[in-house]
Amino acid sequence: MKPPYYAVIFTSVKTENLEGYNEMAELMESLAKKQDGFLGVESASNEIGITVSYWKDLESIKKWKQNTAHLEAQKKGINSWYKSYTTRIALVEREYSFEL
Amino acid sequence: MKPPYYAVIFTSVKTENLEGYNEMAELMESLAKKQDGFLGVESASNEIGITVSYWKDLESIKKWKQNTAHLEAQKKGINSWYKSYTTRIALVEREYSFEL
Repeated sequence: MKPPYYAVIFTSVKTENLEGYNEMAELMESLAKKQDGFLGVESASNEIGITVSYWKDLESIKKWKQNTAHLEAQKKGINSWYKSYTTRIALVEREYSFEL
Repeated sequence: MKPPYYAVIFTSVKTENLEGYNEMAELMESLAKKQDGFLGVESASNEIGITVSYWKDLESIKKWKQNTAHLEAQKKGINSWYKSYTTRIALVEREYSFEL
């Protein structure tokens, strides 16, 4: 993708109570992909979870943050699944890649 | 950490030849922590690897990129360990956290 665009860096530590988590994560990913301004998402997790989603602008991030289904998921996350998390909103200024 | 500061988002897909990779990753992490302007690092990996390091400014990122030991590690990465990777340099504008 050609900068500038935005990255939302979400890092988390989960609780032991992950009932319903995977289904919700999949649902949120499929919903996010339908939002205006969504550019992509990458996730990895072991001791901590890192999800980076990419967006056209701050407006599209704000809309997704306030999406009703997403608000419900955030509430469940706080009440059940997350010990802690940090969300960072960052403007991607440069990007370079290597591919075999 | 209080924005603004920088995040380097490094996402990668590794090859099957990971000989020496873990040792090098540990060495690079310990070296990075000694650099001026280094603020922190978080990593997770399963199908893909995501490492996000945090830095005070572009100058400190540039110096770390050009660090001799790090250049050697980057070369080995390209020659042996990575199928592909993308590095993104991003200015963190906002940050918010939740903790139980």
